[in-house]
Amino acid sequence: MQHFISVDQLSEIDIFNLIKKAESYRKHEYQINQQLFAANLFFEPSTRTKTSFIVAERKLGLEVLDFHPEASSVQKGESLYDTVKTFEAIGANMLVIRHEDDHWYEEVEGLSIPVINAGAGKVEHPSQCLLDLLTIYQEFGGFEGIHIVIAGDIKHSRVARSNAKALDRLGAKVYLTAANGYQDETLQFPYISMDEAVKICDVMMLLRVQHERHTEHHQMINYLTTYGLTKEREQKMKEKAIIMHPAPVNRGVEIDADLIESKRSRIFKQMNNGVFIRMAMISHLLQKWGMDHEHHIEKREIFTGIQ
Amino acid sequence: MQHFISVDQLSEIDIFNLIKKAESYRKHEYQINQQLFAANLFFEPSTRTKTSFIVAERKLGLEVLDFHPEASSVQKGESLYDTVKTFEAIGANMLVIRHEDDHWYEEVEGLSIPVINAGAGKVEHPSQCLLDLLTIYQEFGGFEGIHIVIAGDIKHSRVARSNAKALDRLGAKVYLTAANGYQDETLQFPYISMDEAVKICDVMMLLRVQHERHTEHHQMINYLTTYGLTKEREQKMKEKAIIMHPAPVNRGVEIDADLIESKRSRIFKQMNNGVFIRMAMISHLLQKWGMDHEHHIEKREIFTGIQ
Amino acid sequence: MQHFISVDQLSEIDIFNLIKKAESYRKHEYQINQQLFAANLFFEPSTRTKTSFIVAERKLGLEVLDFHPEASSVQKGESLYDTVKTFEAIGANMLVIRHEDDHWYEEVEGLSIPVINAGAGKVEHPSQCLLDLLTIYQEFGGFEGIHIVIAGDIKHSRVARSNAKALDRLGAKVYLTAANGYQDETLQFPYISMDEAVKICDVMMLLRVQHERHTEHHQMINYLTTYGLTKEREQKMKEKAIIMHPAPVNRGVEIDADLIESKRSRIFKQMNNGVFIRMAMISHLLQKWGMDHEHHIEKREIFTGIQ
Repeated sequence: MQHFISVDQLSEIDIFNLIKKAESYRKHEYQINQQLFAANLFFEPSTRTKTSFIVAERKLGLEVLDFHPEASSVQKGESLYDTVKTFEAIGANMLVIRHEDDHWYEEVEGLSIPVINAGAGKVEHPSQCLLDLLTIYQEFGGFEGIHIVIAGDIKHSRVARSNAKALDRLGAKVYLTAANGYQDETLQFPYISMDEAVKICDVMMLLRVQHERHTEHHQMINYLTTYGLTKEREQKMKEKAIIMHPAPVNRGVEIDADLIESKRSRIFKQMNNGVFIRMAMISHLLQKWGMDHEHHIEKREIFTGIQ
Repeated sequence: MQHFISVDQLSEIDIFNLIKKAESYRKHEYQINQQLFAANLFFEPSTRTKTSFIVAERKLGLEVLDFHPEASSVQKGESLYDTVKTFEAIGANMLVIRHEDDHWYEEVEGLSIPVINAGAGKVEHPSQCLLDLLTIYQEFGGFEGIHIVIAGDIKHSRVARSNAKALDRLGAKVYLTAANGYQDETLQFPYISMDEAVKICDVMMLLRVQHERHTEHHQMINYLTTYGLTKEREQKMKEKAIIMHPAPVNRGVEIDADLIESKRSRIFKQMNNGVFIRMAMISHLLQKWGMDHEHHIEKREIFTGIQ
Repeated sequence: MQHFISVDQLSEIDIFNLIKKAESYRKHEYQINQQLFAANLFFEPSTRTKTSFIVAERKLGLEVLDFHPEASSVQKGESLYDTVKTFEAIGANMLVIRHEDDHWYEEVEGLSIPVINAGAGKVEHPSQCLLDLLTIYQEFGGFEGIHIVIAGDIKHSRVARSNAKALDRLGAKVYLTAANGYQDETLQFPYISMDEAVKICDVMMLLRVQHERHTEHHQMINYLTTYGLTKEREQKMKEKAIIMHPAPVNRGVEIDADLIESKRSRIFKQMNNGVFIRMAMISHLLQKWGMDHEHHIEKREIFTGIQ
């Protein structure tokens, strides 16, 4: 496949190459030496992922085309397929797509330009998975034997499944913890309680309770104390263990608000890594398609609050 | 008039010059050698036209200012006139406007910056007209004696009238075909049936049935078989005849969905041409206003899926 | 404080320096010699202020990140604090924020990047205040002894208070005029009638009657003749006196529509000045934070309708 749809399509070597490329982009500036247009087609609300792709694109020197479904021909009933064909015809050289359909990418296979999946329903979110891998790699230098607990709304998460599978392939030991109704029985990893989880994990990967995807009203009272990461539980974690969360965080639901910016937290580091992994994904894809006339630009000072 | 409001204001020579300029932009890169700001003020939903103007502006090296009526002072009751005066004062060097009022451009005549009409109610859409002319020119090398059928919702189309008049001026033979209620009796071209039309046309220009502009609910059942371009009718077209449509297409209403990407179809080619004709329109206008310090930049590889 | 929240934090020398910097930006081009990202987070509708900041940023060569609350994680309940932390983590080097909360800036104090206040509830709007000062400075060469009348909805204006205080500090003589219910008794400046005001003022600073902030339906009938600037009143103004208004204007409410583009009016000049004062504010702040690697670029022709 020529598009970037799932982490499943990457070999372990591909994953390590992307991680290394991202690390390199974090330290040095690069620019594509052509005028290429990237169109970001987000059919679902997004701050983090969309802005992160935009920053990644601009850092690589790509032109950015924005898209607002509410002010577009989608209002006239235009389909995803016709929208992407339109952007292809108008001159987009690459598409970044998020759509609520679990399998929207089946519609874009025949396009003449590369596509990056920025979120497909509740099943795939490869750039989130890769930025999580990058964050763990920065911390532990690898994945072999690292104990990872994925905690929360496993069933409705588009990150849980791909993260679990990728981490397993890379040699990590994966555990799951979830409230009743949030479990996904198709995943072959052991379920443990949150109290056990905090003791054994090197990485506590929390997931967001996705209020907006649930049709029934969930009982959120006592969620934190029963299933979430409280300050009491955090104290039982190993000295070097870290906390991760794809954000946005429900403060006081899956995690005590005081822990979000605590010493163990890598939550904002993950967001920061997101830009560099997306640069790596974009340039990986442009390379595959023969559009990668990159050149290292004269090194300039980079300002960032996060190191 | 110093603004670009209607194709009617162009001489035949002007039209050919724009077509040739567009062809040149399709083959070579050009950039304006100054920082000029183009503001795209779209008061109606648009994917195609707006994005096409943005790509055209960026290819010429213009800065792009976006506008979202739903997040603007239009919410505080600000008029079109005050909005355009604001953009002029803030430093826009050019405006591209689409508005639902048929005659909005009467309000902008006194501006000190050039304006391009990107759609005026149901009466004018000059960039669509010119990209259609460019597409026909590419195919036939001219217009003299070419048989053109404009088919569909003539009455509510802002393309039909200007296309018909411009093609007639350029020597083409224009026919119309429309269901009852979709006819416009002020146009002095012969109405024929769709069955006749497919046999005589060199160009079948389909129009969109504009559900969103019609207040009553139209009877769409049997529209395709009675008035639309079915696969059966398509087989009766001349060998070199082409199909055009301004899009978005109502698949299965004015045209059988299978014909959209068929060999005869120039629908995506039209969109692709839209970028280059808009570059030509912009630079034509900047030239008129003395802001055209263009320079041919070093030739670089251009990536596009459409040739 | 390292952020740009209020004109109150500036000394008189700071204010004059900003005015002089703005005048310089109006005459010469400058560009920041690095790739810096400015994120414009407008939680309230804005055309003028937001576009003005965008033009200022692009003229300085900054990358611009846009934000649409309605298509963002704010829809998932994300707070202002988490939104700004996200933009910081993703790589924004500067934030420009408008939010309906009067004291939102208390939430951003700990950020590692500079913040500019583009509007805080009904209490602060420093860039509007400074562009007003710039406009008066251009006209009179200073503020000492200039008679300024601030007229209209003083109570609900985020400009009135800071303008009054800053002008007083700079030596101007400030008067207020307002209908019942629009007065703010915490401001220690004399209230006079509109009929007195027109005779004594050098500057008539009108404010917008903010329909959208008022919960009760105001009696707008006779507002113009009783409290507004009619053509009759305008004729009693001094020969060199000018009319200012932050816009958007309610035509025929606080001012007769015919006066908006009259000889005395500086309303569009104010908007034009807004770009240059914002450039000065941005570069002032980047300088404070050590990010000001500016360089004067080769002088190029600047096109603008307003001199």
